[in-house]
Amino acid sequence: MPATNQKYKIGILGATGTVGQRFITLLANHPHFEVARVGASTRSAGKVYKDAVAWKMASAMPDRVKDLVVLECSPEKFQGCHIIFSGLDSEYAGEIEMKFLKADFAVFSNAKNYRQDPSVPLVVPLVNADHLNLIPHQRKIHGLNKGFLVTNANCSTTGLVVALKPLMDAYGPLDQVIVHTMQAISGAGYPGCSALDILDNVVPYISGEEEKMEWEPLKILGSITKDLTSFELAPSTTRISATCNRVPVIDGHTMCVQVKFRRHPAPSPKDIEAILAAYTSAPQKLACATSPEKAIYVSTECDRPQPKLDRDNGNGNAITVGRVRECPVLDIKFTLLVHNTILGAAGSGILNAEIAVAKGLISL
Amino acid sequence: MPATNQKYKIGILGATGTVGQRFITLLANHPHFEVARVGASTRSAGKVYKDAVAWKMASAMPDRVKDLVVLECSPEKFQGCHIIFSGLDSEYAGEIEMKFLKADFAVFSNAKNYRQDPSVPLVVPLVNADHLNLIPHQRKIHGLNKGFLVTNANCSTTGLVVALKPLMDAYGPLDQVIVHTMQAISGAGYPGCSALDILDNVVPYISGEEEKMEWEPLKILGSITKDLTSFELAPSTTRISATCNRVPVIDGHTMCVQVKFRRHPAPSPKDIEAILAAYTSAPQKLACATSPEKAIYVSTECDRPQPKLDRDNGNGNAITVGRVRECPVLDIKFTLLVHNTILGAAGSGILNAEIAVAKGLISL
Amino acid sequence: MPATNQKYKIGILGATGTVGQRFITLLANHPHFEVARVGASTRSAGKVYKDAVAWKMASAMPDRVKDLVVLECSPEKFQGCHIIFSGLDSEYAGEIEMKFLKADFAVFSNAKNYRQDPSVPLVVPLVNADHLNLIPHQRKIHGLNKGFLVTNANCSTTGLVVALKPLMDAYGPLDQVIVHTMQAISGAGYPGCSALDILDNVVPYISGEEEKMEWEPLKILGSITKDLTSFELAPSTTRISATCNRVPVIDGHTMCVQVKFRRHPAPSPKDIEAILAAYTSAPQKLACATSPEKAIYVSTECDRPQPKLDRDNGNGNAITVGRVRECPVLDIKFTLLVHNTILGAAGSGILNAEIAVAKGLISL
Amino acid sequence: MPATNQKYKIGILGATGTVGQRFITLLANHPHFEVARVGASTRSAGKVYKDAVAWKMASAMPDRVKDLVVLECSPEKFQGCHIIFSGLDSEYAGEIEMKFLKADFAVFSNAKNYRQDPSVPLVVPLVNADHLNLIPHQRKIHGLNKGFLVTNANCSTTGLVVALKPLMDAYGPLDQVIVHTMQAISGAGYPGCSALDILDNVVPYISGEEEKMEWEPLKILGSITKDLTSFELAPSTTRISATCNRVPVIDGHTMCVQVKFRRHPAPSPKDIEAILAAYTSAPQKLACATSPEKAIYVSTECDRPQPKLDRDNGNGNAITVGRVRECPVLDIKFTLLVHNTILGAAGSGILNAEIAVAKGLISL
Repeated sequence: MPATNQKYKIGILGATGTVGQRFITLLANHPHFEVARVGASTRSAGKVYKDAVAWKMASAMPDRVKDLVVLECSPEKFQGCHIIFSGLDSEYAGEIEMKFLKADFAVFSNAKNYRQDPSVPLVVPLVNADHLNLIPHQRKIHGLNKGFLVTNANCSTTGLVVALKPLMDAYGPLDQVIVHTMQAISGAGYPGCSALDILDNVVPYISGEEEKMEWEPLKILGSITKDLTSFELAPSTTRISATCNRVPVIDGHTMCVQVKFRRHPAPSPKDIEAILAAYTSAPQKLACATSPEKAIYVSTECDRPQPKLDRDNGNGNAITVGRVRECPVLDIKFTLLVHNTILGAAGSGILNAEIAVAKGLISL
Repeated sequence: MPATNQKYKIGILGATGTVGQRFITLLANHPHFEVARVGASTRSAGKVYKDAVAWKMASAMPDRVKDLVVLECSPEKFQGCHIIFSGLDSEYAGEIEMKFLKADFAVFSNAKNYRQDPSVPLVVPLVNADHLNLIPHQRKIHGLNKGFLVTNANCSTTGLVVALKPLMDAYGPLDQVIVHTMQAISGAGYPGCSALDILDNVVPYISGEEEKMEWEPLKILGSITKDLTSFELAPSTTRISATCNRVPVIDGHTMCVQVKFRRHPAPSPKDIEAILAAYTSAPQKLACATSPEKAIYVSTECDRPQPKLDRDNGNGNAITVGRVRECPVLDIKFTLLVHNTILGAAGSGILNAEIAVAKGLISL
Repeated sequence: MPATNQKYKIGILGATGTVGQRFITLLANHPHFEVARVGASTRSAGKVYKDAVAWKMASAMPDRVKDLVVLECSPEKFQGCHIIFSGLDSEYAGEIEMKFLKADFAVFSNAKNYRQDPSVPLVVPLVNADHLNLIPHQRKIHGLNKGFLVTNANCSTTGLVVALKPLMDAYGPLDQVIVHTMQAISGAGYPGCSALDILDNVVPYISGEEEKMEWEPLKILGSITKDLTSFELAPSTTRISATCNRVPVIDGHTMCVQVKFRRHPAPSPKDIEAILAAYTSAPQKLACATSPEKAIYVSTECDRPQPKLDRDNGNGNAITVGRVRECPVLDIKFTLLVHNTILGAAGSGILNAEIAVAKGLISL
Repeated sequence: MPATNQKYKIGILGATGTVGQRFITLLANHPHFEVARVGASTRSAGKVYKDAVAWKMASAMPDRVKDLVVLECSPEKFQGCHIIFSGLDSEYAGEIEMKFLKADFAVFSNAKNYRQDPSVPLVVPLVNADHLNLIPHQRKIHGLNKGFLVTNANCSTTGLVVALKPLMDAYGPLDQVIVHTMQAISGAGYPGCSALDILDNVVPYISGEEEKMEWEPLKILGSITKDLTSFELAPSTTRISATCNRVPVIDGHTMCVQVKFRRHPAPSPKDIEAILAAYTSAPQKLACATSPEKAIYVSTECDRPQPKLDRDNGNGNAITVGRVRECPVLDIKFTLLVHNTILGAAGSGILNAEIAVAKGLISL
């Protein structure tokens, strides 16, 4: 937390895209962060932000950014920024984010490119903030003083692991996890999904999504070695089967999750509800500025969570779990909701940065 | 098939409801069946059909029924009908259908009331037409000459078992089945689902649906005893876990299915695609008038089936299966689509009646 | 504005309905009003609010109301309330609101029943707050000390007159007004519109709506006589033609408006944009607690307003106008958006009460 | 009508686009036309059709076209085709269609490029088939033997003029026409409208659409000079004001129309319903293969037409009119529905070609 009233200067890469717009919206009234630079493609560079962007957020564009000149995404244009948030498409993120890292910036990326990199923490802020402890090692590898690169996870992965983490903490390793998603269209970016493809329809496939959901949790739920130089995946006996679908919902990914524990007997639904409701994560402990009051909202109503009604729980930075019950095939099943563009994207990036500040990894 | 040009006279109970309207639409140009009587609640009785109904089908109301006087649902009003289709709500179906059965009518019910009755065949026409062989025994119990009662299954159950049947025929008993549905709003009847509940939303619960999907397949996929007097459930080791969701789709239930076979090694995705595509069921063999050309349409495109594009395959009387692939937790997973108000409701009733005619159970 | 910290105690009739829920949501953090009593049908009476209601708002139910016992809607149950907001259905509103009026309560009704009553102000807070000056006369008629009854207007009417008022103030009487609405489903209440009727559809008819839109503006845009005892309709030469449609939008009524002025030449689009943008109404002048910053947000983008993006302008208590341009048939046309359940319903009721407090018509 | 069993060979330009797919679907079982060649962009050329197209129609791709090799859109590739249907984007249509015309093909275009050309008939088949009489003059200009170019109108224009034509025939010139559209997303092509822009939304603007609706009817409803060499616009006193909106509907443009007649008194709603219902147009008179039974379906129900229920009236080649009533500002108002991709696009092209065949303008 900054001792003075001075704010951390924020640079946003991919600022005109959907994730970039969400970063700007979420940072509009942030007590410690202020958007100072916005970067986008060379096509947009040179225009003022309000002319370069097709603004799609439901809340009005913050005055602060309207007249910022859009910059090219090169490190020399962002000198003076303490924190870089990247909402870049994976097509460009790989090269650009590496340039910013090598220029000693603290980079929080929403892209998939470096999630599997053994020196890059893949952090869901409500789950594995301790993975940031690998940053000194990362700096060493790249010969950096203050820069580093952290990625947040895929939107669906993010929701899933927030529920799995307290279960593993309480009951030990999971044997099997089966998850089915019903994902919102905002997850596809803009213009993203054609209305002709999704109105009155379900699309039972999202390119690359099932692979991400089957691998990313292993890193996130895994541990960091004692020497703080590498990650160990979650027990290799954990098998995950993910099935991903797109549905005509604007925001909020709904997931049906089934879990088999290694231990027997498995915990009861009531036990699980209690464990989930009591879960406290790093942002709560560190009193981060955008921390949700609770990491997990547990509903006992028979037909919740629902994206339209529950996606804004915890200002979109919490998950909601309901319908916890026994599964006739595995042990337990429940339904889970995550706001895919807040906790599932920009919200996680901001929380990760808040945690990094609290841990002293970034200074004014 | 009738030798003469004479048609079977059809009576429809619950004719003004969603299922009743679908029966009427599907029978509009039927070569052997003609709608002769329509029944509904006492509130509607006495009006002509076109004034009693809030017609919600996309195709125009058939001229034939427009001026039929709506009757009360009592057997004496339906004298002369060879076949009774019931689209009654379960609230009324129990009592009324029993009256028609006892009055010696051939009754095909879409309601859930008698599905668990040990003397009532629960028939998905593409799966277990042989269960009709219990009808002589049923007649004996009730002291009937020509009447009988057959029910079709829940809409989601129907889609599921059409895919499971050829797998069991080819590879033996299934050990575990996990199914997640994304069900259309038409499944809730009319007015049914409020627009405020489903637009931009998913409702992760449908009352009673999961229980139906976990029990009905056991009867349908089970066998009939040699003495043709009782049903044996599918092997008790088969465990089914169903999770049911409502999504903003008008027609067509999409399901993600995961299967574990008892036998090892499990068949490959390619084998399964071949088995499904080759499946031939009673309506094809008996050349029923509304039989789909194929029982199962197999898609090898990565993002199919989709309700908007595939629900009318086989005129809505077939299922479509796609994305057959290995499952990291069970053996195999795939996505399945069934038109919930055609094969999943009225279409099954009509096919069941066509089969019964072909088997000589109903005569002119 | 209250001199002390004491808050006005609020009673809400029809508290479990859509409008009632909106009243409760909007009052959750009100600086001067606090919900003290909630009333609903006898079916709900006696339960605590959270058990009696099917909560459909996107924000969580305020803690304050969760455990309030739902009362019958009779005046003796609401003793001590300073202000009564009625979200009752018109079926019940007529009788119940009259009882509360006669029991000397200050009643703000959202129902249509008394809108045409010659002694009842029909007030759109951004338009004709001066019509409250008839209240002394109304009290006299009913022999009241402090009670009175004020209604707000139909949701679509409300949006329309906010745009017409500054035009009449600046340019004199309107000769012709043509308005076409595309109205949100929330306007039909809950369960209201069936999903089967509106998904992938437009319903070109809303019962009674066109009549309301063609009459109510005449009273609202009319004047109050000098002796403050009656209303004069807007010039009888003003003719309004309204066409009302329901579209698959959750919140926000969009309207296309065409206007012919009596004066020639008509003002230019630029003049009209300026007049609308500069419009200041009673809530701004009186600094009401829930007053929008501006009454009218004027957009110059070619494709705005849009309900998804603009309905929350001014916290839902303002209208947004765009596409102001010449009309080849009348003089001017533009597109207008109003949040139908905020400014178009509960929001107007609350603003009307705030105005009444500011005018000294209600005291603690 | 061809005397032999030989069919006219059809070439389709822009065959992989939305309009092209609709042409192919509508021609699947055509008694006289058969798709022989398909053309698309150079990117698709050389592939077989089924690999080049992202098929988006609800009915399956006709076997006939699946393995046709996609050709470049140049005349020499289409030798042997009797009729060319162009579903090309306006970006390409201008140049390509002119090449085909100059190469002496009979071209029916859905593009806007030549609609205002004084030598090109702009034909809505249910309205002004007589404009084809200018073809000999057009051939003379271009020095052609059998080729010619005809365009159909904008989708919304098409619906409108079908209703206006019988009114003008019966009651003389119209003084004022005001039309508000609520247009389906399929009108924007594929991918066209982003789901994020239209789900839970209305977009009150469609680029260029209002201009088309205000000009095209003047040519269509105008006449052809006696010497058959030029078009006269409808009486210049006719003024049209169009307002166009996009709504979340898949197919079917709904329009609210208001009309002021020159003659006084204006006809009554009942008279107008009778005139519209009795209207018979060229395709009915010539018994065209895809002619709708009636040009106009008139509904007297209070809440029709609705796109979901009425768009397929007349197989999508008719319009539906309802809510005919007096207008407080102009004379009469009513609501109209046209299937935008059938009668509003490909269906008109096919009907125009059928008329041209019947008139002897094309021979085998």
